[in-house]
Amino acid sequence: MIQKYPSALLENAVNEFAKLPGIGKKTALRLVLHSLKRTPQEVEAFGQAIITLRNEVNYCKVCHNICDDEVCNICSDLSRDPSTVCVVENIKEVMAIENTGQFRGLYHVLGGIISPMDGIGPSDLQLNSLVERVGSGEVKEIILALSTTMEGDTTNFYIYRKLSGFDVKISIIARGISVGDEIEYADEITLGRSILNRTNFKDSLKL
Amino acid sequence: MIQKYPSALLENAVNEFAKLPGIGKKTALRLVLHSLKRTPQEVEAFGQAIITLRNEVNYCKVCHNICDDEVCNICSDLSRDPSTVCVVENIKEVMAIENTGQFRGLYHVLGGIISPMDGIGPSDLQLNSLVERVGSGEVKEIILALSTTMEGDTTNFYIYRKLSGFDVKISIIARGISVGDEIEYADEITLGRSILNRTNFKDSLKL
Repeated sequence: MIQKYPSALLENAVNEFAKLPGIGKKTALRLVLHSLKRTPQEVEAFGQAIITLRNEVNYCKVCHNICDDEVCNICSDLSRDPSTVCVVENIKEVMAIENTGQFRGLYHVLGGIISPMDGIGPSDLQLNSLVERVGSGEVKEIILALSTTMEGDTTNFYIYRKLSGFDVKISIIARGISVGDEIEYADEITLGRSILNRTNFKDSLKL
Repeated sequence: MIQKYPSALLENAVNEFAKLPGIGKKTALRLVLHSLKRTPQEVEAFGQAIITLRNEVNYCKVCHNICDDEVCNICSDLSRDPSTVCVVENIKEVMAIENTGQFRGLYHVLGGIISPMDGIGPSDLQLNSLVERVGSGEVKEIILALSTTMEGDTTNFYIYRKLSGFDVKISIIARGISVGDEIEYADEITLGRSILNRTNFKDSLKL
């Protein structure tokens, strides 16, 4: 359906919104029309928030997480354990793991995973700095927490190979049946892994 | 779930996106992180598009549709019939009706419908200017094309009363079974109306 917009400014705003992932022309129009009901100050605040973020965004020089200073809150938190580093794809995973409250180590944000289909190779990721961090000798354990996809597995293996020369323990987050899931509906690969990687029942009682 | 953001700029941008209707914190974060992968120029264009629209938006002084000039493309189109005016709630309905290609008259955009629950009364809508347009004597027919809700019906009736002193035909868009719908699944009120407002079969063949 070709939409005819009554105003070039409106059309431009709708097209800009429609460039966002998961937002089509109809939703874009709804969002733009909603913006017209807000005050110019509110819309200015909205537009400037994203422009300012993009222009002034800073990445932690240690872990590459987004932050406002040179080093992020997590890396500069002296109460955390710098000998354990959790490797994640993106800042969303940092936030998800932080929300669990189960991890007191530091992170390393790769900024993506190796994905030849999307043209993302090892050189596009923060892999050299990971090797440097491990090389400094402060890190005793690397926890791989990437997606359980082919790309994630590829990246895991690449990192494993890169770090094979160092005296560092490389572990991977447990893969198994989700808490609350019924065995009956679990897929075979997950179920199989959960049996192979079974843990001591007594240990599980402590959680 | 309380999210802890690693950056105040990021948090601000996420909060601004989450103010948009239908966009929660998770989607907002996804959109903001996507913006960080775009160039600063692209993000600037996005932010400025909505700011510029809000600051420079213009409404047609005849029909109150959004436009770039004093009078909109539709009102200034001399090939259209100025004696028929279709009353709609918002610009989205103008676009929907224009897309049908079935209407060659002009519009009148109310900017909403009477909704006491939302605090929207007749004085918040472009009703006086509708009465003025009809009063000028150029309009021969008013077509009411508001939503078939209680608010829509209330507004229809309000307009009907306001225009009762003028020599103008007031019609309402047909309500009936949607094209492609099965009778079996139609609601009773719609089905009842479609029987009461039945049309000549021969006329329907011409469509």
